[in-house]
Amino acid sequence: MTTMKAVRFTAYKTFPELKEIERPAPGPGEVLLKVAGAGACHSDVAVYDEFEPGMNPLVDPEYTLGHETSGWVEELGEGVTGFEVGSAQLVYGPVGCGHCPACSRGQDTYCQNVAEMDYAGIGLGRDGGMAEYVTVPARNLVPLGDADPVPASALADAGLTPYHAIKLALPRLNRAGAYALVVGLGGLGLMAVQILKALTGATVIATDMKPEAMAEAEKYGAVTVPSGEDQVARIREITGGRGVDAAFDFVGIAATARAALDSAAVQSRVTIVGIGNGSTIDWSFLSTPYEAELVTTYWGTVEELHELAGLYRDGKVEPLYTTYAMDGALQAYRDLQDGKISGRAVVVPHGQA
Amino acid sequence: MTTMKAVRFTAYKTFPELKEIERPAPGPGEVLLKVAGAGACHSDVAVYDEFEPGMNPLVDPEYTLGHETSGWVEELGEGVTGFEVGSAQLVYGPVGCGHCPACSRGQDTYCQNVAEMDYAGIGLGRDGGMAEYVTVPARNLVPLGDADPVPASALADAGLTPYHAIKLALPRLNRAGAYALVVGLGGLGLMAVQILKALTGATVIATDMKPEAMAEAEKYGAVTVPSGEDQVARIREITGGRGVDAAFDFVGIAATARAALDSAAVQSRVTIVGIGNGSTIDWSFLSTPYEAELVTTYWGTVEELHELAGLYRDGKVEPLYTTYAMDGALQAYRDLQDGKISGRAVVVPHGQA
Amino acid sequence: MTTMKAVRFTAYKTFPELKEIERPAPGPGEVLLKVAGAGACHSDVAVYDEFEPGMNPLVDPEYTLGHETSGWVEELGEGVTGFEVGSAQLVYGPVGCGHCPACSRGQDTYCQNVAEMDYAGIGLGRDGGMAEYVTVPARNLVPLGDADPVPASALADAGLTPYHAIKLALPRLNRAGAYALVVGLGGLGLMAVQILKALTGATVIATDMKPEAMAEAEKYGAVTVPSGEDQVARIREITGGRGVDAAFDFVGIAATARAALDSAAVQSRVTIVGIGNGSTIDWSFLSTPYEAELVTTYWGTVEELHELAGLYRDGKVEPLYTTYAMDGALQAYRDLQDGKISGRAVVVPHGQA
Amino acid sequence: MTTMKAVRFTAYKTFPELKEIERPAPGPGEVLLKVAGAGACHSDVAVYDEFEPGMNPLVDPEYTLGHETSGWVEELGEGVTGFEVGSAQLVYGPVGCGHCPACSRGQDTYCQNVAEMDYAGIGLGRDGGMAEYVTVPARNLVPLGDADPVPASALADAGLTPYHAIKLALPRLNRAGAYALVVGLGGLGLMAVQILKALTGATVIATDMKPEAMAEAEKYGAVTVPSGEDQVARIREITGGRGVDAAFDFVGIAATARAALDSAAVQSRVTIVGIGNGSTIDWSFLSTPYEAELVTTYWGTVEELHELAGLYRDGKVEPLYTTYAMDGALQAYRDLQDGKISGRAVVVPHGQA
Repeated sequence: MTTMKAVRFTAYKTFPELKEIERPAPGPGEVLLKVAGAGACHSDVAVYDEFEPGMNPLVDPEYTLGHETSGWVEELGEGVTGFEVGSAQLVYGPVGCGHCPACSRGQDTYCQNVAEMDYAGIGLGRDGGMAEYVTVPARNLVPLGDADPVPASALADAGLTPYHAIKLALPRLNRAGAYALVVGLGGLGLMAVQILKALTGATVIATDMKPEAMAEAEKYGAVTVPSGEDQVARIREITGGRGVDAAFDFVGIAATARAALDSAAVQSRVTIVGIGNGSTIDWSFLSTPYEAELVTTYWGTVEELHELAGLYRDGKVEPLYTTYAMDGALQAYRDLQDGKISGRAVVVPHGQA
Repeated sequence: MTTMKAVRFTAYKTFPELKEIERPAPGPGEVLLKVAGAGACHSDVAVYDEFEPGMNPLVDPEYTLGHETSGWVEELGEGVTGFEVGSAQLVYGPVGCGHCPACSRGQDTYCQNVAEMDYAGIGLGRDGGMAEYVTVPARNLVPLGDADPVPASALADAGLTPYHAIKLALPRLNRAGAYALVVGLGGLGLMAVQILKALTGATVIATDMKPEAMAEAEKYGAVTVPSGEDQVARIREITGGRGVDAAFDFVGIAATARAALDSAAVQSRVTIVGIGNGSTIDWSFLSTPYEAELVTTYWGTVEELHELAGLYRDGKVEPLYTTYAMDGALQAYRDLQDGKISGRAVVVPHGQA
Repeated sequence: MTTMKAVRFTAYKTFPELKEIERPAPGPGEVLLKVAGAGACHSDVAVYDEFEPGMNPLVDPEYTLGHETSGWVEELGEGVTGFEVGSAQLVYGPVGCGHCPACSRGQDTYCQNVAEMDYAGIGLGRDGGMAEYVTVPARNLVPLGDADPVPASALADAGLTPYHAIKLALPRLNRAGAYALVVGLGGLGLMAVQILKALTGATVIATDMKPEAMAEAEKYGAVTVPSGEDQVARIREITGGRGVDAAFDFVGIAATARAALDSAAVQSRVTIVGIGNGSTIDWSFLSTPYEAELVTTYWGTVEELHELAGLYRDGKVEPLYTTYAMDGALQAYRDLQDGKISGRAVVVPHGQA
Repeated sequence: MTTMKAVRFTAYKTFPELKEIERPAPGPGEVLLKVAGAGACHSDVAVYDEFEPGMNPLVDPEYTLGHETSGWVEELGEGVTGFEVGSAQLVYGPVGCGHCPACSRGQDTYCQNVAEMDYAGIGLGRDGGMAEYVTVPARNLVPLGDADPVPASALADAGLTPYHAIKLALPRLNRAGAYALVVGLGGLGLMAVQILKALTGATVIATDMKPEAMAEAEKYGAVTVPSGEDQVARIREITGGRGVDAAFDFVGIAATARAALDSAAVQSRVTIVGIGNGSTIDWSFLSTPYEAELVTTYWGTVEELHELAGLYRDGKVEPLYTTYAMDGALQAYRDLQDGKISGRAVVVPHGQA
């Protein structure tokens, strides 16, 4: 038996362990990847630290964490063709039944047979990328060509989530003189700024409580507005009074959602991306701009990950990240919990190229 | 001076008066209509009974009520061509500046120069159709051909409002197996049922507290679900668990909006049409289906009124209405306030054809 | 070795043979279907009768014909879950690489790795449904519930092709007073009439040289116009001069395409579905209505087949078909070649329910 | 009587004359503009030089030429409000009936009552901007703010035409990794390059026979490919073999349209903007990429001109132009006919600011 190291989620309310486990073999239709990068995500922390047994059976332990993964093809399972051994790949994390209408269009996030599933995705109930090797269904692979797979790992969730939300808002930004607003400039928000600049001609307005996050957004071409009392007034002023055509709230608490809604134009789209603290937003007909859509979003589609990988290969998005060796993987989660990480914490089990 | 009778809104918090006033002459670019039908609308009641001075200067008294109007061309103002005297026309009520982007696309409801306007529309700050004659800008006229203009008057608001909301939701209903939900089966809701049946192949689910309103909806082809505790469960059951692709709430209070949101499918659209009692809806990320858009709506466009008039001419929508003579116009408003009217109260200053 | 009967395409320019071959076993990710119905399609005839070696290596013989298939689940291959043995399924025919952007969205017809493929689909280079059993990838299955799988087989191509073309044209038909034109009322054209009536409120105008085909279209609610000199003038007259918003030409020769283009409205969509005899259409700026899109189409997506199966289960489309026993399968192709078949020739290897 | 100079189209097949005519007064709903710039367009030449009497009664002489106009508000006609005297305005040229569905949405180009009209627009059957003063309907004015109105005049047609065509193609370009092709780099083509760069993240490929035109396109960020035998192969190579998602042919002869179609991707849009020499394009199902739409276009909408003016005010598009004094206006047309002009020939009756 060949073994490998893996970060295991062993029980709810329990910090993960670094274990030596059996190296998996790819099943039929699967590919074994040698992991290049595995991103540590706040939602992992939510699962192991906050979830209770029975809340979501799809992510019941025990399994290897890591739903943001890139790697090199190591071995092809039965029936798999079209992948060169050694080629760099990005992994689409969600895994649904594979044969319902939603899965058929590559949107496993909304799998209609989720009740029959044992897991939600790679690193979400099924062994993920926080290990030396991982197996993934061939259809979940997105080729990276010559691009560095390590930073790419951060695209799998922190990139795909804003990309999907932005694509659905593009019809609002498809005009001269459009404005987009990004609220919250952590990893996803900064990615959103870059994607908006890469895909549209809209003026991107960005806001955060931290000046250094806003400075970062300005580097990517955003106009920034600080938080505070006159935030909405200043955003409206930039837009000539009309408001923004699309707003993306990466925080999702009542105050940020309120700012997004109050900054919105008539006939705009306000996407709440962050789950916040589960707080409630007071919505009323009279305080909402006419036809401004308030909407949530969740991750993205396989095809969108192909498109986003293309943007990355063209150098138009660059994830911010810090690497950790395999043996430092638990430290990555500790630093994440302690708020010590700017950008993505990426575990590189085989070192950085 | 030729005079005529008109229902005048004379002061806030004051019931309107039937007065003898000067019959207007069409200005340049305007048409004088001999009124066929003028619908009495709850929003008139709100204006004269509930509004305070200063709330909305656009509708400050004194003026003739009536923003749902049809009539026959009586006289053409300077520069107007293309209308035959005696031809039946429906009136698009909103009137904006006429030269901003929104007005240029026939959506005066979202006029961007509203601050410079003295009124919001015909019968809304500017003399309306609750009179023997009314002047309207030529571009606000929609030809009715051989169709009876009296019932048509009810289309101008009670028809156009649902038509506009439905058009924006059509991309969600553009598929086999789609479901639409109509909450609240008054005049607008029953019109919505008919429009949905005329434009789409969706299964239309309709709900109301009144059995007779639901019976009416069934005549138009809707499946009905009564209000009550298991309302949402029954709606979900009809949709095979998936929920509805588009919901339209014509009431707009917290309970009906909640029912609409809870009945919605992933990636659906929930339009709140009714303003309710100004109440607030508790919206939260986790209790809302993914990508279900929550959105308001307001009236419609000139082009949409052309399309709706076509539906009416083809016999595919039939407004429910009761007629009142000119001298009974104030009674129409009294009955409206007393909740005695089913369908639209239409004043017919020149009698019914 | 268990054997079964199958219609084999053995060589180009050669009529197929009914052979006794080994009954296949489902590979990993595949399902073995007991065939309920297998439609005989003109494109099969084109392949075995007209194609030359080297024209399209994807369909090189030898294999079992049949790309329009339905059946009952007989056995699940390794790793397949979520299908009950005995349940009725419809088969999505195209099979691409499975991991490119097009395949990821269930549109294998436009697979971007087609150069690496050995076949184009089930019954197209890979063993198809003209046999007692067939293996198909699990993701190509669409559940039929309680509906009769025999007529359903005709939906897989003759239904999905018009359904896809119509879905892409729906934005043009999303309004009151829309008109659709169907040129050519064979199996696909009659299906198109039914789908248009099921999904839209458009007036459907249908035309063919055969009066009996037009009578059939009228049963489904179409208005018909005979071929001939004043065909275009009569179509325009029905539309009040404006022309049709969407036209579908199921013949595709110069004359029918011309009729479709000449009947089109400004800002319409003209889809050429039939390949005709490979003839050329003279297109010029000045003879084409402004912004009328001229476009081809090819088959459809997995998700669309799910939707179409729903329409069928709801009784909103009914394929016309004639059944042939397994031993009569070659006769089905002979009758097809002789033009003796109205509706689809469906081979039922296990008899009709 | 106050007089002014104007370039008059006096008779078909006759070169225009510079005449002294009465200065017009604005009618009701109209504005009198003091002309800042009036662009000379090839279509003017076509009208006076190539048209025959009876071909298009809408443009029958005699009238003042100039359908690309900007100016300063000089006087407001009866009933016009909301315009400051002296403010700079751009003129939307088309003028329809004003009350049909197309005109109601600001798309007078497709006026449905054109049969009742005496002219097609300002400078097209009705007196245009090639004069010291011109009257235009208030709704045809688009404010320019502080931007220089002289170059802006070229936007009214040479800018709006590509802007409209591009807007309709944006859904094809709404993704990472999109490619657009511009064929023909005269005034409209170079404007198209700038608009595409301003509105999308697409790679813009530009082609022309003249190296200097391609050099100009490169300045605006385009990748260029020379005309010639391997043109299509080189375009496909740039796109990784896939082809372009949107192509715009500003020439419109058989060869350029062929190049555009042959360079197109599956599911793309090919817009023929130039009328070419009226030549015919051979279109066939098998030689066209699947679902690639072939479509014409014509000018644009009022709202689009508002948007384009915004782009210009933001410095994102800059028309190329040469100015001529009022007395040199006929020389402008001569130079245009002789092919001596690069960019737009703009007559400035009151000099350049």
